[in-house]
Amino acid sequence: MADVKNIIESMAQKARLAARKVAVLSTDVKNKVLLSTAQKLEDSKHRLQQENQKDLKNGKEKGLSPAFLDRLELSHKVIDSMIQGLQEVAALPDPVGEVTKMWKRPNGLLVGRTRIPLGVIGMIYESRPNVTIDAAALCLKAGNSVLLKGGSDALHSNLALASVLQEALAENGVPEDAVQVVPTTDRAAVTELLAREEEIDLIIPRGGEGLIRFVVENSKIPVLKHYKGVCHCYVDKGCDEDMAIEICFNSKVQRPGVCNAMEGMLVHQDVAESFLPRMGEQFKKAGVELRGCERTCQILPYAVRATEEDWGTEFLDLILAVKVVSSMDEAMDYIDRYGSNHTEAIITRDYARARRFLNEVDASLVLVNASTRFNDGGQLGLGAEIGISTSKLHAYGPMGLEELTTTKFIAFGDGQVRT
Amino acid sequence: MADVKNIIESMAQKARLAARKVAVLSTDVKNKVLLSTAQKLEDSKHRLQQENQKDLKNGKEKGLSPAFLDRLELSHKVIDSMIQGLQEVAALPDPVGEVTKMWKRPNGLLVGRTRIPLGVIGMIYESRPNVTIDAAALCLKAGNSVLLKGGSDALHSNLALASVLQEALAENGVPEDAVQVVPTTDRAAVTELLAREEEIDLIIPRGGEGLIRFVVENSKIPVLKHYKGVCHCYVDKGCDEDMAIEICFNSKVQRPGVCNAMEGMLVHQDVAESFLPRMGEQFKKAGVELRGCERTCQILPYAVRATEEDWGTEFLDLILAVKVVSSMDEAMDYIDRYGSNHTEAIITRDYARARRFLNEVDASLVLVNASTRFNDGGQLGLGAEIGISTSKLHAYGPMGLEELTTTKFIAFGDGQVRT
Repeated sequence: MADVKNIIESMAQKARLAARKVAVLSTDVKNKVLLSTAQKLEDSKHRLQQENQKDLKNGKEKGLSPAFLDRLELSHKVIDSMIQGLQEVAALPDPVGEVTKMWKRPNGLLVGRTRIPLGVIGMIYESRPNVTIDAAALCLKAGNSVLLKGGSDALHSNLALASVLQEALAENGVPEDAVQVVPTTDRAAVTELLAREEEIDLIIPRGGEGLIRFVVENSKIPVLKHYKGVCHCYVDKGCDEDMAIEICFNSKVQRPGVCNAMEGMLVHQDVAESFLPRMGEQFKKAGVELRGCERTCQILPYAVRATEEDWGTEFLDLILAVKVVSSMDEAMDYIDRYGSNHTEAIITRDYARARRFLNEVDASLVLVNASTRFNDGGQLGLGAEIGISTSKLHAYGPMGLEELTTTKFIAFGDGQVRT
Repeated sequence: MADVKNIIESMAQKARLAARKVAVLSTDVKNKVLLSTAQKLEDSKHRLQQENQKDLKNGKEKGLSPAFLDRLELSHKVIDSMIQGLQEVAALPDPVGEVTKMWKRPNGLLVGRTRIPLGVIGMIYESRPNVTIDAAALCLKAGNSVLLKGGSDALHSNLALASVLQEALAENGVPEDAVQVVPTTDRAAVTELLAREEEIDLIIPRGGEGLIRFVVENSKIPVLKHYKGVCHCYVDKGCDEDMAIEICFNSKVQRPGVCNAMEGMLVHQDVAESFLPRMGEQFKKAGVELRGCERTCQILPYAVRATEEDWGTEFLDLILAVKVVSSMDEAMDYIDRYGSNHTEAIITRDYARARRFLNEVDASLVLVNASTRFNDGGQLGLGAEIGISTSKLHAYGPMGLEELTTTKFIAFGDGQVRT
């Protein structure tokens, strides 16, 4: 315990010192680090997979599930996707140093806001070792140093990936402490990280709701997170029903296990009788289990009657809660009560209701006539993302490079004093 | 204890409900509330001062200091300044609904970010009852509801001010729960507020370092705060010494008791011998006690030798730490070690050093050739401010109306689905 405390304290202090250097690196140097990491990953595939084998072997002996072991594996495909990710982040514009605004005061003082790195970021995540590279790349490009605490079952893989990154840092004259993987499987390391408020500026947890709640409850450092995505489509009266079918189908079926998949569908009563049977057919073919309100079950005899628990549940599976509503207001009240501030969509032809829905629904992304699946940094045009925030402070929605920075004020004077 | 818990729980839930209504108020209605509050304050001076008298009487009986009682008093001047504050906030542009960016994706999806209120804000502050009006005005204009926990010694004054606000809200058809003053002096109320993470989105403490540390340590809700302002001026070699004298004098003397006053002056060794005697004369005349390094004391025999504790101390008084440095790097290292990320200024003629100082110094405001006293929302052109943040997440520097909002993503589609 004392050991873990010392390890984390020393890592955090080194990260803090490195942060001051990383903050002022040129874009060129940062990109060189990213691209040479990509090259080194390519060259080190064999070594990485050997280290990964240790984790996989331990995992099998521990009886981890095949799905878990699958996420743990550094296959050629996974390594290639990390390489591609590094190249993409290198190609993104550098947010640091951007002057977001500048204005002149009556006394001649020129005042502006400029983007600066946050400092030191702590990432706490579960099994997928590719997060080690993806997160480090984003943090570094935004001028931050990063402490990475991955899942215990991926320790060998994560350390191997970190050593590749650190080689690339060292070769480019950047302090290796800019990217550090916590070299222990001791759970206490998480708690110790969360207590280093003097050195760490931001914690980003990625994983199941349990991990995230643990982090939020124990952190003295600000945390950006989302617990879950309970996303809805509201099918408005008078909408283009063909479009509604396509959007709802895509929102539910295209990738049901992720946070921006639709978990509840709200259908205006005026379109329910024509829309639901056609929509239901599509869902039935795709193997989606429908859990409906009373009215839904009258129209779709094969729907299961929903229980109170089904409303607002994140199924992450081919299951959908369906409710017929008498108005958009009822739909918005439902979303307010059961939604998770993640992603909400309306399918409509009505101008006024589109505007009201956009204005009044409180979610990190509100869409008109498009799939909930677009709530993703890449899809929205931010480039790679480090996560999606459903809390409002600092970032609300996908977090890309900009969200890993903040702004400070700068002022150019020529002798101004306050009177 | 159970009573306080129930009171706070009920208030927080009502504030949450009100927030949904306040978020969509038109700018006109919000301004009407602010201006009619201003009018009512004018009309209610007598009643307000009667209630304030109760607090002053209690305070005197408790033996509170004259300075404390002075801050507690709702004099005509203080009421007038609240009225003026309300009028100023009404005149500021409404941040809510601003589309800060909008772009088109290759698939035709039009994606934007729009400013929305944070939701429910909890203000925790000490004796000055004018904060009740100033903070409520800003929170409301930014579309938030607010829970106000003022100092126990100002309870009658705060409740009277809140009742004026609530009359104005009701007359304009806005839920009165949008602005609530915690009606108890029980200290447990603060702890209960800090636990209402489901209803409250942001806590802003204002007061001494003790209060703020208590809030940070006990809050489950994000906190925007600054502990202290330890601001420096670095007087560069080759600078305009007349300008340096004016700026340093203004930074220290114009209002020594506030967070953006200079607490430490760093002087390059090449200018120390000519600059320090002239600067010292000015400070001596103004009654500033100088606590200097060895070299400073050689040049200024009347300076006191500084102890290690003087470096980095927030004196909030006519006391100044003075150190001669051998380079700008030494000055920046000193600032990194002893500064508080609040305000740092350089006085220079050198282009390259001005750029380096601006880029590399980590403070919420970095100035070239201007007084540290400009770190203030009004002075920088943000309008009224609710505080100054020295932590980086969400806001770094003065927090005006924009900092009381966040952005959500909006997307306008015509049937887009993800492939």
